[in-house]
Amino acid sequence: MTETDPVELLVCTTCRRGLPMEEDAPRPGALLHQALSGAGLPEGIKVKPVECLSNCDQGCSIVLRGGPGRWTFVYENLHEANDIETIVDGASKYHATQDGLVPWRERPVHFRKNCAARIPPIGARP
Amino acid sequence: MTETDPVELLVCTTCRRGLPMEEDAPRPGALLHQALSGAGLPEGIKVKPVECLSNCDQGCSIVLRGGPGRWTFVYENLHEANDIETIVDGASKYHATQDGLVPWRERPVHFRKNCAARIPPIGARP
Repeated sequence: MTETDPVELLVCTTCRRGLPMEEDAPRPGALLHQALSGAGLPEGIKVKPVECLSNCDQGCSIVLRGGPGRWTFVYENLHEANDIETIVDGASKYHATQDGLVPWRERPVHFRKNCAARIPPIGARP
Repeated sequence: MTETDPVELLVCTTCRRGLPMEEDAPRPGALLHQALSGAGLPEGIKVKPVECLSNCDQGCSIVLRGGPGRWTFVYENLHEANDIETIVDGASKYHATQDGLVPWRERPVHFRKNCAARIPPIGARP
């Protein structure tokens, strides 16, 4: 396998996932970040907290990006307990690509149905 | 004013804006791209077509990004005829910042209410 650029998995840690919450209760986004940090992701994927990805109505949300040649993807409607395996699967496949474009049928079903946006690599042609 | 990094205004040109369309009819996204290309945006903002930003249910969509220090923003539910002034306003204010963070009250109302995601600059702290 060709070596690929490192990947960042950004997790919105302030996300309430639409739930009413006590001010000091742990946020679903923070729990998601915690779970992913211990999820045994492949080396080369760095989990990184972000305060608000501004997709509050469709949280929890993550971003996958990495290197100048990869498309960036935003995924939404993720659950801090139920979707860890899905995210590990999708992120691992993303990491294995050079351009971030995992073939449609190989993407986790949740990723196919809950993509908030994809953004081309800087310098890419349309 | 301090000089700022150039900005890219990416426009999804394949967007149907949820409309049923004939195969050869001009897409709302293509019309939006065309309108923005002639909208007299400030020098330093480059309008760039992208085939599918993968936000099809909430189109038309644009992305603002530029330089290693700026947050990237995705905006949605834009209309190819009615929202040109809004986009020019919001993109101009974005261009005038160093970090992409236009103060909330200064953002166009449509931008405040239709942000699909914001993504931190590469290397930014959370």
